[in-house]
Amino acid sequence: MKIVYVLPGPISRNEQGRLEMERRLEILRSYAAPGTQVDIVDVDEGPASIESLYEEYLSIPSTVNLMLEMEEQGYDAAILGCYGDPGLDAIREVTEKMVVVGPGEAGVLAAAMSGYRFSIITVTNSIVNPLYHLVEKAGVGKKLASVRAIETPVLELANDRAKTTQKLVEEGKKAIIEDRADTLVLGCMSMGFLNVAEEMSKELGVPVINPGKISLKMAEAMVGAGVCHSKLAYLTPPKLSSRTVNSSKELLVKKDKIVK
Amino acid sequence: MKIVYVLPGPISRNEQGRLEMERRLEILRSYAAPGTQVDIVDVDEGPASIESLYEEYLSIPSTVNLMLEMEEQGYDAAILGCYGDPGLDAIREVTEKMVVVGPGEAGVLAAAMSGYRFSIITVTNSIVNPLYHLVEKAGVGKKLASVRAIETPVLELANDRAKTTQKLVEEGKKAIIEDRADTLVLGCMSMGFLNVAEEMSKELGVPVINPGKISLKMAEAMVGAGVCHSKLAYLTPPKLSSRTVNSSKELLVKKDKIVK
Amino acid sequence: MKIVYVLPGPISRNEQGRLEMERRLEILRSYAAPGTQVDIVDVDEGPASIESLYEEYLSIPSTVNLMLEMEEQGYDAAILGCYGDPGLDAIREVTEKMVVVGPGEAGVLAAAMSGYRFSIITVTNSIVNPLYHLVEKAGVGKKLASVRAIETPVLELANDRAKTTQKLVEEGKKAIIEDRADTLVLGCMSMGFLNVAEEMSKELGVPVINPGKISLKMAEAMVGAGVCHSKLAYLTPPKLSSRTVNSSKELLVKKDKIVK
Amino acid sequence: MKIVYVLPGPISRNEQGRLEMERRLEILRSYAAPGTQVDIVDVDEGPASIESLYEEYLSIPSTVNLMLEMEEQGYDAAILGCYGDPGLDAIREVTEKMVVVGPGEAGVLAAAMSGYRFSIITVTNSIVNPLYHLVEKAGVGKKLASVRAIETPVLELANDRAKTTQKLVEEGKKAIIEDRADTLVLGCMSMGFLNVAEEMSKELGVPVINPGKISLKMAEAMVGAGVCHSKLAYLTPPKLSSRTVNSSKELLVKKDKIVK
Amino acid sequence: MKIVYVLPGPISRNEQGRLEMERRLEILRSYAAPGTQVDIVDVDEGPASIESLYEEYLSIPSTVNLMLEMEEQGYDAAILGCYGDPGLDAIREVTEKMVVVGPGEAGVLAAAMSGYRFSIITVTNSIVNPLYHLVEKAGVGKKLASVRAIETPVLELANDRAKTTQKLVEEGKKAIIEDRADTLVLGCMSMGFLNVAEEMSKELGVPVINPGKISLKMAEAMVGAGVCHSKLAYLTPPKLSSRTVNSSKELLVKKDKIVK
Amino acid sequence: MKIVYVLPGPISRNEQGRLEMERRLEILRSYAAPGTQVDIVDVDEGPASIESLYEEYLSIPSTVNLMLEMEEQGYDAAILGCYGDPGLDAIREVTEKMVVVGPGEAGVLAAAMSGYRFSIITVTNSIVNPLYHLVEKAGVGKKLASVRAIETPVLELANDRAKTTQKLVEEGKKAIIEDRADTLVLGCMSMGFLNVAEEMSKELGVPVINPGKISLKMAEAMVGAGVCHSKLAYLTPPKLSSRTVNSSKELLVKKDKIVK
Repeated sequence: MKIVYVLPGPISRNEQGRLEMERRLEILRSYAAPGTQVDIVDVDEGPASIESLYEEYLSIPSTVNLMLEMEEQGYDAAILGCYGDPGLDAIREVTEKMVVVGPGEAGVLAAAMSGYRFSIITVTNSIVNPLYHLVEKAGVGKKLASVRAIETPVLELANDRAKTTQKLVEEGKKAIIEDRADTLVLGCMSMGFLNVAEEMSKELGVPVINPGKISLKMAEAMVGAGVCHSKLAYLTPPKLSSRTVNSSKELLVKKDKIVK
Repeated sequence: MKIVYVLPGPISRNEQGRLEMERRLEILRSYAAPGTQVDIVDVDEGPASIESLYEEYLSIPSTVNLMLEMEEQGYDAAILGCYGDPGLDAIREVTEKMVVVGPGEAGVLAAAMSGYRFSIITVTNSIVNPLYHLVEKAGVGKKLASVRAIETPVLELANDRAKTTQKLVEEGKKAIIEDRADTLVLGCMSMGFLNVAEEMSKELGVPVINPGKISLKMAEAMVGAGVCHSKLAYLTPPKLSSRTVNSSKELLVKKDKIVK
Repeated sequence: MKIVYVLPGPISRNEQGRLEMERRLEILRSYAAPGTQVDIVDVDEGPASIESLYEEYLSIPSTVNLMLEMEEQGYDAAILGCYGDPGLDAIREVTEKMVVVGPGEAGVLAAAMSGYRFSIITVTNSIVNPLYHLVEKAGVGKKLASVRAIETPVLELANDRAKTTQKLVEEGKKAIIEDRADTLVLGCMSMGFLNVAEEMSKELGVPVINPGKISLKMAEAMVGAGVCHSKLAYLTPPKLSSRTVNSSKELLVKKDKIVK
Repeated sequence: MKIVYVLPGPISRNEQGRLEMERRLEILRSYAAPGTQVDIVDVDEGPASIESLYEEYLSIPSTVNLMLEMEEQGYDAAILGCYGDPGLDAIREVTEKMVVVGPGEAGVLAAAMSGYRFSIITVTNSIVNPLYHLVEKAGVGKKLASVRAIETPVLELANDRAKTTQKLVEEGKKAIIEDRADTLVLGCMSMGFLNVAEEMSKELGVPVINPGKISLKMAEAMVGAGVCHSKLAYLTPPKLSSRTVNSSKELLVKKDKIVK
Repeated sequence: MKIVYVLPGPISRNEQGRLEMERRLEILRSYAAPGTQVDIVDVDEGPASIESLYEEYLSIPSTVNLMLEMEEQGYDAAILGCYGDPGLDAIREVTEKMVVVGPGEAGVLAAAMSGYRFSIITVTNSIVNPLYHLVEKAGVGKKLASVRAIETPVLELANDRAKTTQKLVEEGKKAIIEDRADTLVLGCMSMGFLNVAEEMSKELGVPVINPGKISLKMAEAMVGAGVCHSKLAYLTPPKLSSRTVNSSKELLVKKDKIVK
Repeated sequence: MKIVYVLPGPISRNEQGRLEMERRLEILRSYAAPGTQVDIVDVDEGPASIESLYEEYLSIPSTVNLMLEMEEQGYDAAILGCYGDPGLDAIREVTEKMVVVGPGEAGVLAAAMSGYRFSIITVTNSIVNPLYHLVEKAGVGKKLASVRAIETPVLELANDRAKTTQKLVEEGKKAIIEDRADTLVLGCMSMGFLNVAEEMSKELGVPVINPGKISLKMAEAMVGAGVCHSKLAYLTPPKLSSRTVNSSKELLVKKDKIVK
């Protein structure tokens, strides 16, 4: 089985990013079951990190194109490397048989299987409302206790791992006591790659779901079960299905000369 | 009061489109109250028409930038010219005091004021599921009877106005009888600019909401009432509010050389 | 366009009331768009103010009759001058083509357009539960954060404007922090005519919706858009549609001699 | 235990009505448990029958006053004699310790105890939407399969009992097959007093709830259990609790001379 | 009318239990209306008390069999003597015409009739989540304010009645103030038989529903109204309806020799 | 990784059953990832098949005990071999660290990941209402299109595989067209072991989820991700956590001599 992790930001644009990409690949490979090949790619153009809906949308055009390439290259599954699942539905519209896992969706469905009520602990308040909508869209809004933010930007999470962990534990405790959560989900991929979920789980006594890990395992499960997204749910764009255009790239048109 | 209608596709890229743009402007101006100035602009790059979530996402980057320009130019309100409200939340994240009207949102809220249950009649099945989510997000899912499609592509709606109208009436009738709708909404801006709502309303005996017209009137109402979107709901992207970047355009970064 | 504001209590029964009525008319006219004529009327019989469902019901019979008169006089829209929208549905049952705006309904739909979650700040606890139902009925219960009361009777709101404003700001702050509201609505018309919404909005940093102002603008918008209530939703009482009685007044019958 | 059935229309205004009132009293007494005394009263002024929200509201002022009298006369419980429960909440606002049973509420709660999904079969379409709201308000909307009407006016139900029964059976069958109902409720008191529920139940093989009968039994149950409505839910109107007025009748004020 | 109270645990297995059983019978008889005969029985095998779903399930097989016996003996109604309603649906699957009252279901439906929002005060946290599901299943989840536990095991409730009452009052107060409840339900039959509801109600100023008392009165009401559970909702197990087996007891099969 | 499939009925009580058990084991092993060991066990006592809630409950006591044994034997995960997930919550109450997969829960969560709306196709109508509740409890009720039955008893499914498949395809088609489902789930384990999902999927053009296969893959995923059920959600029965009893078996008590 071949799975690719697709980063919706151009993380490899500098040396530090390339190292982080390798580090993440190693971690992902450590999660994989025997027989699963894991690769990692990033887009050429996109946001530096995603902390707003605007940055989510900025990531989508390049990501969709890269996902199509991955399907052509024969990957069985792709993981969309942002907890907000930006463009997950659009990717499913244009792909045919590659399983596409959104960590947001996968994380909350796993949480739904673990308890009665879960909370998501994410980075910044700017993404709290969008995550409520993500959960509704995933269909498990009834089990959502709360979405909480530690108010630390994505790119600063790893600066002080101990402090970040402490904030996560504190916010998790509030979710358990004030919001009656019995399960937690880390609502950011960079949080996942900090590998703090086990620590938090031990300290708090509840399951804490690492979105990177669960995404990989869900990708393996869906491919293994032979279940891909429904093309009746995620219909191919009409211009493509009717052959009005030849490829998804042609769906974007431009003015020759700008006339405003 | 100054209102601008923003087309999220580069419609003016050819002569026919420029004429259509003028035609739409004239119609919009005919809707306006005394004292309301209406203008129209389109993006330089985007989809030819929007019949899928992928095309919605393709339209967002350019549209957000154009919306920011419109705010700088002093418009009191802008109408996002696609019924699916693509990027409405992102536009509200980056703008500060310009009212931004999404025709999808405005249309269903007006429908909620007209009756107990409404149906949306839209173009193609590929957009039906996304419209269910739009209504949920707008908060009026409880009043939604159904979303139905006439299965005619956006760019073919005007080819045979009589046939399109007939299909709309037929689907509307089904919504009333089978889904118990008492109010209809036209779920596509190009349907709105066909000016068939009154005809349908007369034939079917229920209000039929024209998304273009209601958007303009809602824009006037919100500006007139001094009510803009809440910046506590649509938070400014953290990189912007913390001055990590200087403008929303800098949120998009690229690889210098592509290393894959 | 002709709009009438209908007071469901006999406010003009004394001099002070007549002055207040004139004051309100002036304020309403200051809200109106060019070309909108605004008038004000009150019923001959009804409650002194409305702080309970019983008082809501007491206001309905006279108000429905007055609304019918207003329709006959050619008004394009009428605003029902109580935030609880007493009898809004009944008025729509008997009127045919006059837009009838309920400030409760109009206010919460505008709030739904402004953010993700809104709270209503109203006068007394006795009206809190009914307002939860009003929001459900309006169809936007999903976006309701809370209904809160400042525990000041309607007729005492204006006695100490500064104190009332302070209470409103305090309760609004609680709604924002404790209930996660991002938008506020003033849940009483007399609060609206205090003209405190702008002040509150500045202090709290969120939109605060004035029910009087939004009602007028929504009335203009609905008339402008040509959208009235659906007669399939608000069916004419069968005795009227079947001509069993000649007018809505005949729907009330009495015993000749009281036999108990 | 003393229970009174309160008719919200002046049915005794003619001989035929007086006979019908006696007939209903006899039926109610036949339902009563040993030790339960049942009486019947009607208002002096109100609608001839109730098939619209407007007629519901017309019935409330007189009914509230009559209910207060009944509480003063020492009744343990009162049944509000209209399936739409007009003014039920207002009656509970002004009464203190008399159980007030709304047949709509009592009927659907009994239905909720009988199966997974129930349908209401009522008289005319004009009352269908209001009954959906009644069920939501009663809190059991999740178990509602549908509300259906036989399109027969209240005052014609008894003209041809066989035909009415046949229509009820037909509509009930549709509710079972098309809407997946497993329990039915007759949504009109006059239907209840036709005594057709048992017949229907035998023919359709599902419980059919007679709103008159269930109201009496629920009244006995609530009085027997010592459970009245919560005064924290149905707060006394502030003007009454603060002694601003001396009685609920004073809540209605009038202009001396009509100045319009 | 003959009603039997069925204890789903073998309480009569010792002297103390036999006395408690008699005490409960006496109390139940004191609730009964004239003409109602009340009896009490317990199963031969089951849990000592029920504080978990596992103990609920342990009680079901013997209870279903005992319920079938009770139906054969001609009881008009049976009360399932555990607030969690264990196996209520299964009992209704196999019985035909005996009303089966679940105190959980009956209690929350009565609460729904008393106010806008109710809270359940139960014994231990281990049963809190299951009670949320019970309320959802009963169909009145919309009116549920909260479920709270006093953290006292069932078998210790009566050890110190004063302390138990104090804890109940404290938790009830929190429900009223923090969760906005206006009605309370005691979520455990042993709490009901402590006879503290009236005391709590006086102290807290809201209705407090005793599940034992309300169950008996609801049983009388449903039998009196002639309304039993719908056999279309609670279908007879297919092996029984098709006569594949002769009695419900034969639905349990065993291995002759254990081969593992 | 060691996974055990636990049959909640004593299927091995005869030769035919023993062969079927072996056949199922072989199929399950064919699903397993490299490195996953799969075993199968059945209870000594339970229902022959499960087509009612009563039979579900009959299966629970023995199944819980067997699950506890499996945990002691060191299994990483157990699959509860009935689509209705009988006693899933109770098993989680008493186990500590073994992942327990309910095929009902796992199937509908996978379906939620595949599309917008799913339908369950099950055996008999007697299990339709319980499955609606299962989906609600699993938290994905919002995505449920319908539950449909082919009206074939479990034990007859394999008698005529072609006919069963045809019925499944027919009912699936209705779910897609009439209920707007885009994904199907087979709602019975015996249907799963017929291995018809791929065939149906090809014929109907939508994903069809085989509950046996998805359960195994979800078990692997949850074990691989290190996510077990939350013990804060599924609390250990108080008598066990407080050491009032020594083992879960002691939770069942019996009368010495039966005194009735």
